[in-house]
Amino acid sequence: MRLLECVPNISEGREEKTIALITQEVKRHKGVKLLDVSSDKDHHRSVLTFVGEPEAVKDAALSMALKAIALIDMRNHHGEHPRLGAVDVVPFIPIQGMEMEEAVKIARDFGKALGKKGVPVFYYEEAATSAYRRDLPSIRKGEYEGLKEKLQDPKWKPDEGPESFNAKSGATVVGARFPLVAYNVNLKSKDLNIAKEIAKKVRFKDGGFPHVRAMGVDLKEKGMVQVSMNLTNYRVTGIPKVFEFIKEEALKKGVEIGASEVVGLIPLGALEGMVQHYLKYPDFLIRQVIEQRILEFE
Amino acid sequence: MRLLECVPNISEGREEKTIALITQEVKRHKGVKLLDVSSDKDHHRSVLTFVGEPEAVKDAALSMALKAIALIDMRNHHGEHPRLGAVDVVPFIPIQGMEMEEAVKIARDFGKALGKKGVPVFYYEEAATSAYRRDLPSIRKGEYEGLKEKLQDPKWKPDEGPESFNAKSGATVVGARFPLVAYNVNLKSKDLNIAKEIAKKVRFKDGGFPHVRAMGVDLKEKGMVQVSMNLTNYRVTGIPKVFEFIKEEALKKGVEIGASEVVGLIPLGALEGMVQHYLKYPDFLIRQVIEQRILEFE
Repeated sequence: MRLLECVPNISEGREEKTIALITQEVKRHKGVKLLDVSSDKDHHRSVLTFVGEPEAVKDAALSMALKAIALIDMRNHHGEHPRLGAVDVVPFIPIQGMEMEEAVKIARDFGKALGKKGVPVFYYEEAATSAYRRDLPSIRKGEYEGLKEKLQDPKWKPDEGPESFNAKSGATVVGARFPLVAYNVNLKSKDLNIAKEIAKKVRFKDGGFPHVRAMGVDLKEKGMVQVSMNLTNYRVTGIPKVFEFIKEEALKKGVEIGASEVVGLIPLGALEGMVQHYLKYPDFLIRQVIEQRILEFE
Repeated sequence: MRLLECVPNISEGREEKTIALITQEVKRHKGVKLLDVSSDKDHHRSVLTFVGEPEAVKDAALSMALKAIALIDMRNHHGEHPRLGAVDVVPFIPIQGMEMEEAVKIARDFGKALGKKGVPVFYYEEAATSAYRRDLPSIRKGEYEGLKEKLQDPKWKPDEGPESFNAKSGATVVGARFPLVAYNVNLKSKDLNIAKEIAKKVRFKDGGFPHVRAMGVDLKEKGMVQVSMNLTNYRVTGIPKVFEFIKEEALKKGVEIGASEVVGLIPLGALEGMVQHYLKYPDFLIRQVIEQRILEFE
């Protein structure tokens, strides 16, 4: 079974009826499973998580997006979270049985279709058309309120759709990325500097492991400090690598690891490297897991 | 999603047409996935692996069994593998979202239905009605050829079905058990005694870990020896426990671990304990795996 995940962020987090109408557009697509809907009233924003066959996911995302631009008017939207449009960000994430190139193609097909409906579209991450457009924050800079002006800058010509400002819908950022693993390691210490120093060593930006973002966090209630990470490509840098590295670095400072944790969901593939590493089992594949076989069967 | 696995062993491993007709009975059941069919001509035996919703799996197993007793005649059956009947062994294995008690109930329902069709049925493992009937080898002792006499012994009165000998179909052993993890650890040594000594320490029979069967094996081609194990209840004794124990014991003898491997499929649940142990993450649950969520969704 080929599995693509889509995690769109839409600018409606308050009206339950509107959110239900929008999510309904995902549910009615056969072969797509809506795993989660999280709405935040302060952010005035909802995040949907759904997975399924790539084409079905694309179709569901498009139906969902068209319903959202029909129901949401950005002229009345105020929330704490940065945003550029009614359908703010639409990332496609290859989970199983497909390459990143296919997810990029799906993202571009989706972007073209949404552009034709009158919404300016910017591609980001693996679907970006230029290096300076890879990062979401740089595309979203200026937000909805600054979009009209931003669109007049030739540097910010949309990848799809009209070059003119769409006051009702704003713009949409569409892309493809690897599944992200949010992974934290707690240290038995109250010294935040230790967590910060180790975070610096582990993150790519400062010479650490590729595809790792990291920061030190104070867990006051637990009386511990934490190295909080995003592993943006677990196939290149997986959990065992950062866990063992942090364990060693902490030990050098006489500090033990208290615990570690994953935030949210992880793909089964992220466990493959764990078995390979800890059990001296380099050939292990998730195909050897019954549940994986059941999914492939379909 | 509740998932029950069934791994019936039938006494036909040569006639492809017959095997296809029998497996067809599983395939035609909605909600059941036939993951594997392995036939062995020398053993004259086929092993089917299918999973799905518990009731659907029971129904599929029964259709399959009725087709098998219609097509197979034990009076003409000769193979190297010990066997008691046309449908030789039918184990039901709870994989997800169900307790052993439910699998036992399914096994008993299946056994009753098969018994009514004229086949003597013995319950084994978790479905056994007496301690001496738990082990498959003791029920199967004497094989098909000795069954007529065995049935005259009041100790071997069948749990279901006729007490008289069914010459065409023999008898069927039906039961429920935990998913078995076949797990081997290779040692960088050519001394078979080292593998045998460690196997003795690790297996339950000789005072080792509960639910572990183990033996020492010579891997001549690899120039290594192996501790070959069956973990019959990974929730009680999981992979990390035996791996780390064997690593320590081997080190005491100056021997390193070469590699380890799983034979066949393992349930996702068997990886839960690995994450908990190696990442100091006692609260980790397989519910945090996207693929698991997809399966639960259905």
